[in-house]
Amino acid sequence: MNTFGEYFTFTSFGESHGKAIGGVLDGVPAGLQIDMDMIRYELDRRAGKTSNNAGVSPRSIREADEVEWLSGVMDGVTLGTPIAFIIRNRDARSQDYEWLKHSFRLGHADFTYQQKYGIRDYRGGGRASARETASRVVAGTIARQILAKKGIAIQAELIQVGNETNPDNFNAHIAAIQVNGDSIGGIIRCTITGMPIGIGDPIFDKLQAHLAFAIMSINACKGFEYGAGFSGITLTGSETYLSNDQTFISGGIAGGITDGTPIIFRCVFKPTPSNPLTLAAISPTHIQPTNNTHSYPARMDACVALRAVPVVEAMTALVLADFIKN
Amino acid sequence: MNTFGEYFTFTSFGESHGKAIGGVLDGVPAGLQIDMDMIRYELDRRAGKTSNNAGVSPRSIREADEVEWLSGVMDGVTLGTPIAFIIRNRDARSQDYEWLKHSFRLGHADFTYQQKYGIRDYRGGGRASARETASRVVAGTIARQILAKKGIAIQAELIQVGNETNPDNFNAHIAAIQVNGDSIGGIIRCTITGMPIGIGDPIFDKLQAHLAFAIMSINACKGFEYGAGFSGITLTGSETYLSNDQTFISGGIAGGITDGTPIIFRCVFKPTPSNPLTLAAISPTHIQPTNNTHSYPARMDACVALRAVPVVEAMTALVLADFIKN
Amino acid sequence: MNTFGEYFTFTSFGESHGKAIGGVLDGVPAGLQIDMDMIRYELDRRAGKTSNNAGVSPRSIREADEVEWLSGVMDGVTLGTPIAFIIRNRDARSQDYEWLKHSFRLGHADFTYQQKYGIRDYRGGGRASARETASRVVAGTIARQILAKKGIAIQAELIQVGNETNPDNFNAHIAAIQVNGDSIGGIIRCTITGMPIGIGDPIFDKLQAHLAFAIMSINACKGFEYGAGFSGITLTGSETYLSNDQTFISGGIAGGITDGTPIIFRCVFKPTPSNPLTLAAISPTHIQPTNNTHSYPARMDACVALRAVPVVEAMTALVLADFIKN
Amino acid sequence: MNTFGEYFTFTSFGESHGKAIGGVLDGVPAGLQIDMDMIRYELDRRAGKTSNNAGVSPRSIREADEVEWLSGVMDGVTLGTPIAFIIRNRDARSQDYEWLKHSFRLGHADFTYQQKYGIRDYRGGGRASARETASRVVAGTIARQILAKKGIAIQAELIQVGNETNPDNFNAHIAAIQVNGDSIGGIIRCTITGMPIGIGDPIFDKLQAHLAFAIMSINACKGFEYGAGFSGITLTGSETYLSNDQTFISGGIAGGITDGTPIIFRCVFKPTPSNPLTLAAISPTHIQPTNNTHSYPARMDACVALRAVPVVEAMTALVLADFIKN
Repeated sequence: MNTFGEYFTFTSFGESHGKAIGGVLDGVPAGLQIDMDMIRYELDRRAGKTSNNAGVSPRSIREADEVEWLSGVMDGVTLGTPIAFIIRNRDARSQDYEWLKHSFRLGHADFTYQQKYGIRDYRGGGRASARETASRVVAGTIARQILAKKGIAIQAELIQVGNETNPDNFNAHIAAIQVNGDSIGGIIRCTITGMPIGIGDPIFDKLQAHLAFAIMSINACKGFEYGAGFSGITLTGSETYLSNDQTFISGGIAGGITDGTPIIFRCVFKPTPSNPLTLAAISPTHIQPTNNTHSYPARMDACVALRAVPVVEAMTALVLADFIKN
Repeated sequence: MNTFGEYFTFTSFGESHGKAIGGVLDGVPAGLQIDMDMIRYELDRRAGKTSNNAGVSPRSIREADEVEWLSGVMDGVTLGTPIAFIIRNRDARSQDYEWLKHSFRLGHADFTYQQKYGIRDYRGGGRASARETASRVVAGTIARQILAKKGIAIQAELIQVGNETNPDNFNAHIAAIQVNGDSIGGIIRCTITGMPIGIGDPIFDKLQAHLAFAIMSINACKGFEYGAGFSGITLTGSETYLSNDQTFISGGIAGGITDGTPIIFRCVFKPTPSNPLTLAAISPTHIQPTNNTHSYPARMDACVALRAVPVVEAMTALVLADFIKN
Repeated sequence: MNTFGEYFTFTSFGESHGKAIGGVLDGVPAGLQIDMDMIRYELDRRAGKTSNNAGVSPRSIREADEVEWLSGVMDGVTLGTPIAFIIRNRDARSQDYEWLKHSFRLGHADFTYQQKYGIRDYRGGGRASARETASRVVAGTIARQILAKKGIAIQAELIQVGNETNPDNFNAHIAAIQVNGDSIGGIIRCTITGMPIGIGDPIFDKLQAHLAFAIMSINACKGFEYGAGFSGITLTGSETYLSNDQTFISGGIAGGITDGTPIIFRCVFKPTPSNPLTLAAISPTHIQPTNNTHSYPARMDACVALRAVPVVEAMTALVLADFIKN
Repeated sequence: MNTFGEYFTFTSFGESHGKAIGGVLDGVPAGLQIDMDMIRYELDRRAGKTSNNAGVSPRSIREADEVEWLSGVMDGVTLGTPIAFIIRNRDARSQDYEWLKHSFRLGHADFTYQQKYGIRDYRGGGRASARETASRVVAGTIARQILAKKGIAIQAELIQVGNETNPDNFNAHIAAIQVNGDSIGGIIRCTITGMPIGIGDPIFDKLQAHLAFAIMSINACKGFEYGAGFSGITLTGSETYLSNDQTFISGGIAGGITDGTPIIFRCVFKPTPSNPLTLAAISPTHIQPTNNTHSYPARMDACVALRAVPVVEAMTALVLADFIKN
């Protein structure tokens, strides 16, 4: 349930306010010199530290996200054995969440966790917290390093925030939303170049199906499309296939298998429900908004899509490393 | 590579112009009386026989799709052992495809298969043919019968064809496209009711991730979204979560786990590339359209989305039966 | 539950007295010319037709075991797609087994099947019948052909029957047992040559663990050992490792990984419980022998180990093809 | 490669002389109060601290084996999320192993690891070290606690050391071997009581096949048998099935499925090759013994079977918890 991949596998563990989060990466070839700076950089991107910080939770910025390597690496070089790593939870102010003990936040997993397990770590989302994605970024960045040696590059970018499609305006747009105590969603586009022809399997294990699975497993993601996607609905077959923009049309995959052109997909992230306006309506049931006098905590992101960009790249890398290994 | 599911598994086999297609369904409980009429009906829907036939390939209509049960069933009742079945390929006019031996159709998997395997059954798509989905319908319909006993119902419907969103106009719209020798895509919405709370896993095995994986593995599918999906991008967090239409917003899943409300997702199918206008541009390379004097065969669908509806239901059922079993 | 292997997978189906048994083999590379004569020969060995028939069930000898190929093969050459095949059950004299409907044979799976599934195909063992191993032989022989191209050979042989260790005496020994209406067990030794160094994984997926898993899944097998095995218990460490017979000691595997020397393992098969003396004691409970006046049918093997030899080779081949593919 | 189980999974990591060993246990139900004392006790058994210490490596006795819980447990109660734990390597005197950098010990995995990975952590076996089994004991003991709640008990014991079958003499026998600088193997018998009828699957996933897989994955194990096993070879069918000792005969499993009687299996462990007499013959190749003037280190076990007893129980528990969960 907490393992991703078949041949190149990543097992994730940890609650947001427990002792540590971390993971075990299995299937990494021996002899790879890990680029620790790149891992540091990607973790900073995920924490919102590398861009203007508009819309990023203060906790993320404070936290160091120091990776401790437990096994599988000797002097920075992989041994071919499973790589285990942890990131300790330093800023666990659990008392911030005491008020949540008997309530469920709208749009959060609080309610379904309580129902499924009969117990939950209510402190900041527990296992459901997006903090878990830090482990994905560590693992995915190692996968990207393996792929880079084969000439494969993954590049994701935020292309839309609410109605806004001009990246120059994103920070101002998010800042305005945040001032209002609100939040907003975003669309990320990911491009993969350098893929050899023939990767992916027909029938069930189509490459696009595995990419969709990986991306849809990221918190707050509500949709995935590749090539023309939903917007291709208005074109007829002749308009589609006789157009000059075959990359747009095919998305780099035919019959589940790479055709050698760049792979392009897009995914959409919902606005976080952890915004002051929404939290003011928290209730002991999970669906009906109610009035709530609790003064909400300040640690929340106005646009989680901003920080999802390196997570999208990481999950994409885990999928591709699994197929390439295969 | 040709097996779907973890606990309740379906293994698919067969080329469109080989001896037979079929499958093995494992994990079906003993003692289930299979409703053979429902399987017959769903196969007819997939073949385009149950509605007005606008836009459906003549081959599909001619073929009987007779299911032969090889194991796992005694007097119509399941034994708890693997259920193997086959559907023989009766109308295999391979000569129709001789002209394809050295060419690749645009938008088809011809090219990638040839590259990946170095060999391909060029007759009508071989393994890549959508005919394989008949096996999925047989297996998925058995899964639906298991789910029905638990009160779970799956209902998919075509909600858009090209620009047209009024179902009353779909057949006329498709007929007009077909007369022009062209093809068109469609959007299908699927609703799942009766799901217990707590199905799905956090982290990687979120229910929406498995649904996306299953649906994106269907031929010609280019996108998947649930709840508000891509169209939710224009709403802020407060507009989203404080709206009265929580089902639309959440799509029935929170944190990867069912919340007891109906699950709603949508998926988009591209126009088939097997239309006369596109085939006229077939070429020995796979991407650049060229002029082609070949007179195209007549067996093609103007709107494959029409016939994808029971396949969407079948794949959804396979996912849910796998989780419920779990 | 009915699929073996991770990357090179074999799915088995069919009851002994249903319509057909068969299987689906996935992961076979495209372009392999299948040696159909070898498959025919191995099926005959399993049916006891290639040696003196002492101790072999008449049904086995009568049955043709004709393999029908449904998919994955075109003109005898593999397509890279799943290979589905069936063997129809021609000699299904179910009435022979009517007397078993309400009784359980000692040493058979009758009782546990009834308990687990609440329903069983009592005709000749149903799914539990050793007839299922014919499908394993078909699949395993294809695996052996893949391995042979890499220089890997698998050779199993019966080395002990009861107390008898001289192969020249095996048939006479078995014949004498059979005349008494009794049955006897046997030990099979299997030797694998040509394995490259480095196959197998440390920790859980040790090569010997996977071999044990495969061999112990064969009906009537009660034990597995490799290298010195149980008989090494009398030697000290210095006697063991300083001996000149390192192959005997190591069995070709160290730390779960092949060391380049031949792999040698042994397995033991119990006497079949389907012998007249035992069947005379059949009872409606599964454990306590009772007197029984039923006159037993004649179709039973005095020494199933004889026919297990090609099954041991087949299962070994499935394990190795899975690892080599990996 | 480092994950065991399908539904109840254990992922193991760590090198013997790296920072830590540990594991992730997934599929543990929420709300289980873990008995930490039992884990402490089983780790002590594995370290040879709970019995007379004859034949146990001094390192094992010195090491504390403190378990640090990273996730999945809150106040000693499981959360239903993955349980990650580590045991730090405190006594890593790597210099003891410097002499091994360019040599391979007979009977060890040194050679095959070097060949497979091209790199190895030569310090004390690295990943191949039996120290990894401490993690298995932690995970397996949690599994035993889950099973105990269902009335299932697992009990393993050493029943033979070399030729000696009287347990009262084991310590004296081992001490005598050790004084000579030699080592000796052992046979362990494991009994499982309280299993419900119907656990295990026919065909490939027979319960005995999974038990064999688990047990054969333990370092130094060379054979597995259940019920009558290899020793049953001398009995005919009528002697076998009409005997009064059905438990001995069937071993508690029929057709791969539990029959409700106790399950009994045996396994054999080779003498450790790390004894002074053998190490004196270490060589830069892996097979031919040579004279060696190195004075061997003192940290080695004269009879590893002694310490394998709790590991056998742990692996058995992991198998059963996986099946029961299923």
